[in-house]
Amino acid sequence: MTIKFGVVGTGAIGVDHIRRITNTLSGGEIVAVTDVNQEAAKKVVDDYQLNATVYPDDKSLIADTNVEVVLVTSPGFAHEATVLAAIEAGKYVFCEKPLATTAEGCKRIVEAEVRFGKRLVQVGFMRRYDSGYMQLKKALDKGYIGEPLMIHCAHRNPEVGDDYKTDMAIHDTLIHEIDVLHWLVNDEYTSAQVIYPKKTKHASSHLKDPQIVILETKGGVAITAEIFVNCKYGYDIQCEVIGTDGVIKLPEIESISFRKNATLGTNILMDWKDRFISAYDVEIQDFIDSIKKTGAPTGPTSWDGYVAAVTADAAVKAQESGTKEMIYLNEKPAFYRN
Amino acid sequence: MTIKFGVVGTGAIGVDHIRRITNTLSGGEIVAVTDVNQEAAKKVVDDYQLNATVYPDDKSLIADTNVEVVLVTSPGFAHEATVLAAIEAGKYVFCEKPLATTAEGCKRIVEAEVRFGKRLVQVGFMRRYDSGYMQLKKALDKGYIGEPLMIHCAHRNPEVGDDYKTDMAIHDTLIHEIDVLHWLVNDEYTSAQVIYPKKTKHASSHLKDPQIVILETKGGVAITAEIFVNCKYGYDIQCEVIGTDGVIKLPEIESISFRKNATLGTNILMDWKDRFISAYDVEIQDFIDSIKKTGAPTGPTSWDGYVAAVTADAAVKAQESGTKEMIYLNEKPAFYRN
Amino acid sequence: MTIKFGVVGTGAIGVDHIRRITNTLSGGEIVAVTDVNQEAAKKVVDDYQLNATVYPDDKSLIADTNVEVVLVTSPGFAHEATVLAAIEAGKYVFCEKPLATTAEGCKRIVEAEVRFGKRLVQVGFMRRYDSGYMQLKKALDKGYIGEPLMIHCAHRNPEVGDDYKTDMAIHDTLIHEIDVLHWLVNDEYTSAQVIYPKKTKHASSHLKDPQIVILETKGGVAITAEIFVNCKYGYDIQCEVIGTDGVIKLPEIESISFRKNATLGTNILMDWKDRFISAYDVEIQDFIDSIKKTGAPTGPTSWDGYVAAVTADAAVKAQESGTKEMIYLNEKPAFYRN
Amino acid sequence: MTIKFGVVGTGAIGVDHIRRITNTLSGGEIVAVTDVNQEAAKKVVDDYQLNATVYPDDKSLIADTNVEVVLVTSPGFAHEATVLAAIEAGKYVFCEKPLATTAEGCKRIVEAEVRFGKRLVQVGFMRRYDSGYMQLKKALDKGYIGEPLMIHCAHRNPEVGDDYKTDMAIHDTLIHEIDVLHWLVNDEYTSAQVIYPKKTKHASSHLKDPQIVILETKGGVAITAEIFVNCKYGYDIQCEVIGTDGVIKLPEIESISFRKNATLGTNILMDWKDRFISAYDVEIQDFIDSIKKTGAPTGPTSWDGYVAAVTADAAVKAQESGTKEMIYLNEKPAFYRN
Repeated sequence: MTIKFGVVGTGAIGVDHIRRITNTLSGGEIVAVTDVNQEAAKKVVDDYQLNATVYPDDKSLIADTNVEVVLVTSPGFAHEATVLAAIEAGKYVFCEKPLATTAEGCKRIVEAEVRFGKRLVQVGFMRRYDSGYMQLKKALDKGYIGEPLMIHCAHRNPEVGDDYKTDMAIHDTLIHEIDVLHWLVNDEYTSAQVIYPKKTKHASSHLKDPQIVILETKGGVAITAEIFVNCKYGYDIQCEVIGTDGVIKLPEIESISFRKNATLGTNILMDWKDRFISAYDVEIQDFIDSIKKTGAPTGPTSWDGYVAAVTADAAVKAQESGTKEMIYLNEKPAFYRN
Repeated sequence: MTIKFGVVGTGAIGVDHIRRITNTLSGGEIVAVTDVNQEAAKKVVDDYQLNATVYPDDKSLIADTNVEVVLVTSPGFAHEATVLAAIEAGKYVFCEKPLATTAEGCKRIVEAEVRFGKRLVQVGFMRRYDSGYMQLKKALDKGYIGEPLMIHCAHRNPEVGDDYKTDMAIHDTLIHEIDVLHWLVNDEYTSAQVIYPKKTKHASSHLKDPQIVILETKGGVAITAEIFVNCKYGYDIQCEVIGTDGVIKLPEIESISFRKNATLGTNILMDWKDRFISAYDVEIQDFIDSIKKTGAPTGPTSWDGYVAAVTADAAVKAQESGTKEMIYLNEKPAFYRN
Repeated sequence: MTIKFGVVGTGAIGVDHIRRITNTLSGGEIVAVTDVNQEAAKKVVDDYQLNATVYPDDKSLIADTNVEVVLVTSPGFAHEATVLAAIEAGKYVFCEKPLATTAEGCKRIVEAEVRFGKRLVQVGFMRRYDSGYMQLKKALDKGYIGEPLMIHCAHRNPEVGDDYKTDMAIHDTLIHEIDVLHWLVNDEYTSAQVIYPKKTKHASSHLKDPQIVILETKGGVAITAEIFVNCKYGYDIQCEVIGTDGVIKLPEIESISFRKNATLGTNILMDWKDRFISAYDVEIQDFIDSIKKTGAPTGPTSWDGYVAAVTADAAVKAQESGTKEMIYLNEKPAFYRN
Repeated sequence: MTIKFGVVGTGAIGVDHIRRITNTLSGGEIVAVTDVNQEAAKKVVDDYQLNATVYPDDKSLIADTNVEVVLVTSPGFAHEATVLAAIEAGKYVFCEKPLATTAEGCKRIVEAEVRFGKRLVQVGFMRRYDSGYMQLKKALDKGYIGEPLMIHCAHRNPEVGDDYKTDMAIHDTLIHEIDVLHWLVNDEYTSAQVIYPKKTKHASSHLKDPQIVILETKGGVAITAEIFVNCKYGYDIQCEVIGTDGVIKLPEIESISFRKNATLGTNILMDWKDRFISAYDVEIQDFIDSIKKTGAPTGPTSWDGYVAAVTADAAVKAQESGTKEMIYLNEKPAFYRN
């Protein structure tokens, strides 16, 4: 049995998923593609020798009875409409983040899915499939360090372009921590605060960099998250969870060690794309396997997409207000509790 | 294009490769299976819902025109005959180690392949596909530590069964180092010596454990390889290469770190099967992709299988003699030089 | 030339310094001791076979013309009076922390020293003499990571007694970070905020544990300091400085590594007394050597004691208010600038 | 009570010990010095403002009734005569390695000391006082890894001068491993073998570098020791002991870690003098304290000096013969068993 994907959006991430499903993973197949740039859509069909129909828009692609999963890799603003249409049609959805660009939009998707009565949607928060985070999750779930009390993390990029604005530190960068951390501790956020250290000389004039975001959860876990997108030295993701009985921490990336020129060292990545490359593979393979085995995806839900949107909005508000902003979530539908 | 495999031998490793090709990798398909235990062969076809013919023996499987690759996962003594028959039929071969149980047998396979005039055979030395060893190889090839002069390595198992004999330290354990080390330094061995430290109390009465094997290469690289198969604490593979300008070393396995009970630690594996699980995936995917792209496998060759056999024989002789034993190889056919 | 010490207070820390100066270090000698418990004072003279006079009180000890340095190791509340009397008499002072129990008291000492016109006093902040912190300082001073922007640190104890109160997290625990961090970045604090994560079940009912203290400096360095005094697993001091061009971090304590029972580990200390034992030695030796060479101590000054007191007061206020509290310091006398 | 030293030989190491005893340690004093270069002897008295007599030769210095310990830091060939004279006079001796330049000479010292009937002599093998080695020793003694079976070690220098000859790899470099390893496992050596890997291009024409020395002990411990004195990258001492139940290893040197330029690293020393600087301090302080407390030194004995000499001679013979050379020791006098 092969899961048949229709891809909406054949930009970089869309093509990457097409390559992954076609050449690397098992059990999936691309049968339809669309893009506002029809030439781009045709090109990927040629490049990967896909046996796939090129559609003029998402509506027609979704209508193709052959399409079982709608893979949404269009620009963020277009996600909501496509996801809602796919749910309407009863198709599975794998939607890259953000689920929608507003909390309201995410809420509409949650409501549509609940109305449909069955889980269809998975949001592309790939960190949950990273082997380090999975080890953290496993240790936490079995109580290895008792109850979690604090999390210290860092998200560092060597540099960003001039078009990277201060609020993107939340929407594009912290968004991954927002998802993965509440999943790790099985909790939701209640407040956000942002502290601005001295600005690095390497940031563009309009950008506040670095930032420290403090999040608190219902259960009382306090999180300090450093965002530093012009740290120069590398792409570096750190996460340490402090519990009542011990501490666990993400591994450094796997690297041979070297002794050379008076230094004992290992390599740090410079390109973010290399960091979670395996996680992307595991994520999509798990999506395929889950649908095959259980009839539904088992990864990040629409509700998780909604939590991320509401939390990010509060954090952006905190960036502007300079004080602690409370986070108010709707009640979690029973539908999303397992 | 899908590469069609016929599997000879549906024991544990055979079934594992069938699972891998069917459920995990991309571009391969099992179309035929055989085993002396026909029920076992039928069972795997059922279990994995394969669209595959069950053959009574390797000859009939090889004769199936649908079969492009003969995957040899039968017991070692049966390898040579199957591989020779497959070469005769012009089929690709992926043969688990050993290529043959004797150096003479390996030599016959080398000669058959040379006679056939095209590379068909890959031997299942999976370490070359481990990400740590690949990093070592890349660093060596670009001269990062200058010229390699020495290698220190260790191959430790927590324990072995009573049926594990002293010479298996060479044929079953060191064999992996024998292959991967000469590949790392692009060289071949000239001598072997074995030193027996005090025997651990945890070894069975007939087994000499641990052992230190010293290998030297044509280019003068001196290798000290510790084999310790009842080390109790874990399955642990170490490899450090010392060059004229620096030292590089395999990473420890990827593990979260923990601080608990007065210890800062990471996990060590206890089960060897977990150590190279990714390497097996990468190995077979690379085999499939290479045949698709270049029309021939690009991994360990029949010649490498021959080198391993001759070197292992000398090391076993050194186990018995207590002195340094020279290693004599035939001249490497131009066919295997790239 | 031997520096002659009179010791005021022969409790645990007093006796430890007497032992250090007598049996371990070079160039110092105990010539006088006093304690409210005169028997304790006599006992230490006997135990260490000191050639020292036992005085009834600090005044008479200070008056002994033989005494060059007054070593103040009495309870904190008694420090101010002794230090002021010693300055009055023109004696050098080594005063264990706190310099005085109030910022006002510290200010009076600063003023007395300035009035006297020469540096006499060193405060016992020993971390500046720890080899790890000294390496951090050296790297920062030479600009190895560019300009410092953030510091993340943790101060963890395995457990504390029932008499440990919430504000002691500042006055007894964070006080060391307060001193060493502003020294590291050559800066002073402007604000403090305290966040209370979920309380550990291992803390006594009246104690808020852990706590996260956020400090900001004039130069804009943002500091997140975790205080966790019932962390169970060990005594653990961490400090990471993030700069514009890189990150530096304290080493873990020096420990052999072990591979045992599926763990690769190093040891974590359980007793805080073992952590800075070398730092105490280096600190007092440096005090002795500085006086010999330059005629004045060169370690933490009265001003540093004052900075610590004002900052700690603000942090305690922040513990109670739940908001960010500003830190106002008097202008630093030119006397303390070098 | 102060231990009074007479120093024979005021070259670099002699001056270093004088500085140490005078300015850093507690309980020792230099009261006499001599050197064939009388000006050098006078200069050190001036430089360190010693209250010490300058003698024309070792005989007259030993005869000074004020001298309790003869500190032998003259060139190696002169050690034997001075040590024998000091024993004759019933003085304590601290003798830098080698105890004597020949095994016969060491044997004469052993016999003289046994004849005298009381331990007087300590040999300057400082590694036993290094905190890492002490941790290894402690772990071994308490059976933390069961019985030791193997030791892998490396002794690497960045480079050596042209006057460094092949046999100095044994007499000057390996000599430290020879002493410290047999102490670690409480055993003596039975054989030595030397293997020459490919020579590094960075070694001078007459020098074989690197070398691998294999030592075996009476109890069956097998040791592989790499000597590489032109390794370029740093001064690096490694030692790993493999036991029946686990493995322990020397720590890397204490260094802050850094993240910079795509590397996560720590520092490696370039200068051997920095590596054991603390060990020298601990060694001499322990020598002073032991004499004070027990009336005799408790560190490496004349017998250890003899063991080192005999073992080194066998290793040099093995360098030349290319085969395993047996090591024959006299029976250990009961005098040296504790």
